[in-house]
Amino acid sequence: MSQNKRPSPDRRPTGAAFLLAQVGAHGARRFAERVAQIGLIAPDAGLLRKIASDPGVSQQALAEHLGVMPSRMVALVDELETKGIVERRRSSEDRRNYALHLTDRGRKTLGDLSGIAAEHEESLCSALGKEERVQLKNLCQRIAEEQGLTPGVHPGYRQLGRKK
Amino acid sequence: MSQNKRPSPDRRPTGAAFLLAQVGAHGARRFAERVAQIGLIAPDAGLLRKIASDPGVSQQALAEHLGVMPSRMVALVDELETKGIVERRRSSEDRRNYALHLTDRGRKTLGDLSGIAAEHEESLCSALGKEERVQLKNLCQRIAEEQGLTPGVHPGYRQLGRKK
Repeated sequence: MSQNKRPSPDRRPTGAAFLLAQVGAHGARRFAERVAQIGLIAPDAGLLRKIASDPGVSQQALAEHLGVMPSRMVALVDELETKGIVERRRSSEDRRNYALHLTDRGRKTLGDLSGIAAEHEESLCSALGKEERVQLKNLCQRIAEEQGLTPGVHPGYRQLGRKK
Repeated sequence: MSQNKRPSPDRRPTGAAFLLAQVGAHGARRFAERVAQIGLIAPDAGLLRKIASDPGVSQQALAEHLGVMPSRMVALVDELETKGIVERRRSSEDRRNYALHLTDRGRKTLGDLSGIAAEHEESLCSALGKEERVQLKNLCQRIAEEQGLTPGVHPGYRQLGRKK
């Protein structure tokens, strides 16, 4: 083992990839704190949005869309059903599957989530002007497309319920 | 419960905050896959970089810098010591604390990590030209500064070893 006491150059990561991961994780944590204030977890937001834009979507199709393990999806929907936000109905096409719908309270919650998302956007991007935000969105959008990410789906769904 | 069968507009999130979280999480996962190929976990990269730029840093100071719980820091350093990458020496200033150093193998590993980070940057940002990458970095950098993030430190360190 050699001595290595001499000071070395600063080796902080400076690339865009690191900054995206850093700012992205920070933003995700802040967003999770905001949605916790209305009794939800961050993944609920994607579930509610998908059910709202595709009423009657099957539990299985929702799990596939988000990339969530089916067993974990059952737990997420259970929780939202207990809260009176989502309603399971037996699918008319496939009695073994469930069609998911927002309740009236669910639609109210979705409205609250839109407000939260707008506040969050404003707060996270407050360093940037309007045009710069559009620029940032466009750059990120192009990376997301080139990397083959499913639009509107956070990759974190794939990790839900998995051991690290 | 009202019927809500009519199709609704697409409600995919479109803000910069969501895109940053999505692309950031995707990039972090890809980076973790890359460092796994040399037998490390992503948090090791930050530890090695900090020890390299501040040789002899105490285990406690490193934990504070990264925001890792001390008990978790012990486990991370244990692992790197077992691999022969990091060496603990009794601190000459405080015998109860450890000064951390990279071994020769550790310096070789750090070089490998630099290569991995460069490949990762190139791969994640391949949709963007050189000037656009600089633009993206500058925009993210300004958000990171305004949000008070510690330069070069991923917020995920704070979650390590904590239950979700």
